[in-house]
Amino acid sequence: MIIVLKPHSSPDVVAHVLERIEALGLTPHLSQGVARTIIGVIGDEDKLQVEPLQAIPGVEQVVPILKPFKLASREFHPEDSVFDVKGVRIGGGHLAMIAGPCAIEGEDLLYETAVKVRDAGANILRGGAFKPRTSPYSFQGLGEEGLRILRRVGDALHMPVVTEVMDPRQVELVAKYADMFQIGARNMQNFDLLKEVGKVRLPVLIKRGMSATVKDLLMSAEYILAQGNREVILCERGIRTFEDSTRNTLDLSIVPNVKGLSHLPIIVDPSHATGRPELIPAMARAAVAAGADGVHVEVHTCPEKALSDGPQALLPEQYARLTAELRRLAELMGATIDVCEGVSV
Amino acid sequence: MIIVLKPHSSPDVVAHVLERIEALGLTPHLSQGVARTIIGVIGDEDKLQVEPLQAIPGVEQVVPILKPFKLASREFHPEDSVFDVKGVRIGGGHLAMIAGPCAIEGEDLLYETAVKVRDAGANILRGGAFKPRTSPYSFQGLGEEGLRILRRVGDALHMPVVTEVMDPRQVELVAKYADMFQIGARNMQNFDLLKEVGKVRLPVLIKRGMSATVKDLLMSAEYILAQGNREVILCERGIRTFEDSTRNTLDLSIVPNVKGLSHLPIIVDPSHATGRPELIPAMARAAVAAGADGVHVEVHTCPEKALSDGPQALLPEQYARLTAELRRLAELMGATIDVCEGVSV
Amino acid sequence: MIIVLKPHSSPDVVAHVLERIEALGLTPHLSQGVARTIIGVIGDEDKLQVEPLQAIPGVEQVVPILKPFKLASREFHPEDSVFDVKGVRIGGGHLAMIAGPCAIEGEDLLYETAVKVRDAGANILRGGAFKPRTSPYSFQGLGEEGLRILRRVGDALHMPVVTEVMDPRQVELVAKYADMFQIGARNMQNFDLLKEVGKVRLPVLIKRGMSATVKDLLMSAEYILAQGNREVILCERGIRTFEDSTRNTLDLSIVPNVKGLSHLPIIVDPSHATGRPELIPAMARAAVAAGADGVHVEVHTCPEKALSDGPQALLPEQYARLTAELRRLAELMGATIDVCEGVSV
Amino acid sequence: MIIVLKPHSSPDVVAHVLERIEALGLTPHLSQGVARTIIGVIGDEDKLQVEPLQAIPGVEQVVPILKPFKLASREFHPEDSVFDVKGVRIGGGHLAMIAGPCAIEGEDLLYETAVKVRDAGANILRGGAFKPRTSPYSFQGLGEEGLRILRRVGDALHMPVVTEVMDPRQVELVAKYADMFQIGARNMQNFDLLKEVGKVRLPVLIKRGMSATVKDLLMSAEYILAQGNREVILCERGIRTFEDSTRNTLDLSIVPNVKGLSHLPIIVDPSHATGRPELIPAMARAAVAAGADGVHVEVHTCPEKALSDGPQALLPEQYARLTAELRRLAELMGATIDVCEGVSV
Repeated sequence: MIIVLKPHSSPDVVAHVLERIEALGLTPHLSQGVARTIIGVIGDEDKLQVEPLQAIPGVEQVVPILKPFKLASREFHPEDSVFDVKGVRIGGGHLAMIAGPCAIEGEDLLYETAVKVRDAGANILRGGAFKPRTSPYSFQGLGEEGLRILRRVGDALHMPVVTEVMDPRQVELVAKYADMFQIGARNMQNFDLLKEVGKVRLPVLIKRGMSATVKDLLMSAEYILAQGNREVILCERGIRTFEDSTRNTLDLSIVPNVKGLSHLPIIVDPSHATGRPELIPAMARAAVAAGADGVHVEVHTCPEKALSDGPQALLPEQYARLTAELRRLAELMGATIDVCEGVSV
Repeated sequence: MIIVLKPHSSPDVVAHVLERIEALGLTPHLSQGVARTIIGVIGDEDKLQVEPLQAIPGVEQVVPILKPFKLASREFHPEDSVFDVKGVRIGGGHLAMIAGPCAIEGEDLLYETAVKVRDAGANILRGGAFKPRTSPYSFQGLGEEGLRILRRVGDALHMPVVTEVMDPRQVELVAKYADMFQIGARNMQNFDLLKEVGKVRLPVLIKRGMSATVKDLLMSAEYILAQGNREVILCERGIRTFEDSTRNTLDLSIVPNVKGLSHLPIIVDPSHATGRPELIPAMARAAVAAGADGVHVEVHTCPEKALSDGPQALLPEQYARLTAELRRLAELMGATIDVCEGVSV
Repeated sequence: MIIVLKPHSSPDVVAHVLERIEALGLTPHLSQGVARTIIGVIGDEDKLQVEPLQAIPGVEQVVPILKPFKLASREFHPEDSVFDVKGVRIGGGHLAMIAGPCAIEGEDLLYETAVKVRDAGANILRGGAFKPRTSPYSFQGLGEEGLRILRRVGDALHMPVVTEVMDPRQVELVAKYADMFQIGARNMQNFDLLKEVGKVRLPVLIKRGMSATVKDLLMSAEYILAQGNREVILCERGIRTFEDSTRNTLDLSIVPNVKGLSHLPIIVDPSHATGRPELIPAMARAAVAAGADGVHVEVHTCPEKALSDGPQALLPEQYARLTAELRRLAELMGATIDVCEGVSV
Repeated sequence: MIIVLKPHSSPDVVAHVLERIEALGLTPHLSQGVARTIIGVIGDEDKLQVEPLQAIPGVEQVVPILKPFKLASREFHPEDSVFDVKGVRIGGGHLAMIAGPCAIEGEDLLYETAVKVRDAGANILRGGAFKPRTSPYSFQGLGEEGLRILRRVGDALHMPVVTEVMDPRQVELVAKYADMFQIGARNMQNFDLLKEVGKVRLPVLIKRGMSATVKDLLMSAEYILAQGNREVILCERGIRTFEDSTRNTLDLSIVPNVKGLSHLPIIVDPSHATGRPELIPAMARAAVAAGADGVHVEVHTCPEKALSDGPQALLPEQYARLTAELRRLAELMGATIDVCEGVSV
């Protein structure tokens, strides 16, 4: 940590800051110039919280040097983490191909869609039973009945299933049916929910919040990891910017950025990011070319009748064309895509 | 609602859209030009969800006309709402002066701060018992012990108290101690939490999320209102933008904007918005001049020892100078500020 | 400047950095910890450009300590600058009340508007002769004929006039007619234009770019100051954010922020910031309460017939009500507003 | 165009709007509901400017239907445009590989870099002679001497050259030396400059402004096209967002977005977008996979001694590895990359 004092700080201020540092058992290094004094502190930054020091009169700036996340960091775990979601590997060159409707609307419809995306090469089935809708008057999901449908369809087709959990009180329930939790963008900093999924031994797919920095996302992953659950997969789904021709702005640079900072896998969701089906294939290809560990795409057999997010869904045949492209791209990148039992693509 | 078809739409597409509209018992108005067809639908927009229509092939754009919120709207309740928080009025020309430390750290410290802010003219005491911290390793609040302290100090000084609730499981507990719930920015779209506080008869102060539009904030208020709790107070606390010299960008235009759209009171928190104590007084004055229904300011007797957000806290004497300015400004604006029992400012 | 090396940097890297610093005649201060090395450099930062140092392999971060602007800084000129625009003072407690139509459309219309805003208390007349329009097919302004009209109306009413200059080739021409240059938001980083107006002895009103940080704005002012023109007035007019219910997001915190960093006056333009006339009065009041050195408002006698930006213009009678409010507010703030010759408000 | 009136508009308001429309020789279509009136206008929207109509009292919203750009639109020119820059094709499946140093610093250095990037497969050489620097105290470029060097090196190596023009007064000079103009992000809405390059018959590479929407970029292209210069190439180089771990946020969705809206080629600059060399290769691959018509990368033989933007430059050997990857990717995408005379890669 580096503490920059205001110009022409009095010896009293300098002494006060040094005292605070030494009281914590740390050694300050003083650099005194004509107008400026800088204090370097090398050691366990945790002991010396950045915030309170900034509040000392005379301190202009406190520059932290160490990263605030540990378990999520590449330093802590130099190798890429690879997680196994019921036979499907994610991370370290293994791509997740997650597909399915936004919301679970009924068993027949989900089954029909699931067969098609599985045959196209999807290796994880998605579908929401609890839906975070902006309006209280919109369809809120089928709840536990939706979870049961998802489980049955997943089992029938040998596909692992992922579904969103929104409420700490639902964690136990969702864990009974799902192979992976999803934490939605709006709940990325719902810290009580993060703690609760951190206590279960089930992989967690956590989506970046619409105004979350890369560091914020890694800190939210750290919340889950710190509770003991070590299987966290990050997901980029677009951030809010001034650009209004897409629903959000997909920030693909997070992929190589996270690869440098962390060992955790990161996948990309071009459906929510763009909100426009005609842009999804190009963004899915870009994600794989950037080194993402998978792609999450919404697929619906009849988007105009979807109860949620229909306009951004691909048709099954569009998804099949996309996966064919992604497989060739993955091969070029040296990546592999696990397929579900009984499927050959 | 207006449905704009793509250029040169075939008669089949037009017929399909008309059929969907009529099946809902609504009457479409067709405007057909040389290249473009536009369909106006007047009636109950709720019946005709915008989303699925956008997914019909041939539809270029669906423009909703009605606002998606109802109970929060000025049309629903033309007069300004005025809420009474244990004797302190908020809204309709009555300003809330909310002050206190970020986190409750101990009874003596809170009491000392509370006396000072009350004597300066604060009429509601704030303090966090459950803290949403970005890092799992930071101080997370004193929990129920904090709530008890807050209650005792509030009672001793005849000040209503407001505190954050983060988890639907804590709503009942917090309701036992608080006079007003606070929903933090990170939980503005934690819909299960909104539903839970919507079931209790206690005013709710809901903060704008860092990437929430004005409409998003009103939709979140609508979630609470729709559950039966009609006492919702909005709070602007800054949004995330590229500007990095302040913690967030305070969007004061939300004040007159909300006044036009809604009957709900809106207050402003310049502490979290700027993160810099030297900017807080100017922004608090600007808020009152813009017509805000109150100001929320963090105050700490020793910011450098605060366990949370110290660097943005005002000292009690700074707060006292500020409230003196705000009272003069309120008078000029024709607004009034209730004071706590036993105080004369 | 502080140079943070990557963890476990080799002695070679450390030596290479030290050598670069010493070659510039500066003294480095080495702080070496177990894993980290930090080098503090006290002295003339100009000699040691930040950028190239960041490119040295082994350097993780370079943290500049000194501000990159000098002539614009409060350190360089501790007192508030006060500029005189043909008898109207701006800065140091003197407020500019700039008003007029977006574009000059004709002499009668401008005169009629100018009389009304002058009688309402405006002390500087604005009007565009060269208009930066997003579309090449929109009205581009009357050019020199517009300048002549502006000059005649200003002279007839004893009002100083301000108008936009967009092209370095027009600087001389505009200087013949105007009492103050305006640099528009889109040209804030048109550095050749800044250099050109920097060579003329006429005050410059420079608007913040839509994606400019506070520091960027001050650096652009520095460009003008560095050429010898010391009369620069800053103007906040909103930045681009995700919020789409206003044209831009007015960032009023820039006012106290700039007051700390710089001696230059800063005024606020709520017309372009909000794009909505019903929000302008509240934002103008907020600007004055925040300590702004003036307010810039667009006024048109018939907004629906305006050739540019009609929908955001106030009517003259709305402007008159606003100025009455602002005068009371200014008085409370201890500020003064010069009036044009022959006017009493 | 659709004109939505405020709820319960009086017959007078409706009549006034209809009159304005008919006076322009257009036919309005009235849709009148219980509370709302909507007026559709089919025909030549140009006649009926959107702006003034929004200013009519009683009008709530005006929704334009037609796109504001024409010459840049896909409707105007359904086929992909392919431009030839001295033998190198850009657009329609032909990729530009633009590389070179940020600034031209001397002939030997430029020659050395140019040989290396050419041999790696770059087909256009870049280098700045006029540099738009944020600080007036930074290196501003070699000016005409830089242009001469660029021309000589380009000629010696049979490489077309591109360089930035910042000032309308330099257009003629730059045209003497360059094979393609570059308009920088900060000048994207310097409309006088756009008009000037629009009068010359030389391709223009125009970079997206940091706060420009996709529509804004296309409108700026329209300015150039409207002057008669039909060879415009768009360039994405990142937008300003709250994310601060990269210099800007690369918005790759613009690539398929522009492909739908326009016939103009669009290339991507991952150097300025990320500002971090370790992220450039992944983003360059993503750009090609998204369908971009080329990649613009800064390369320097000794980044730590670069006079401008050193920290974001790739070393020549890093660039060579990248181009090898991009060629394989281009092949997979069915795209081709022209090479300079005498090179085989």
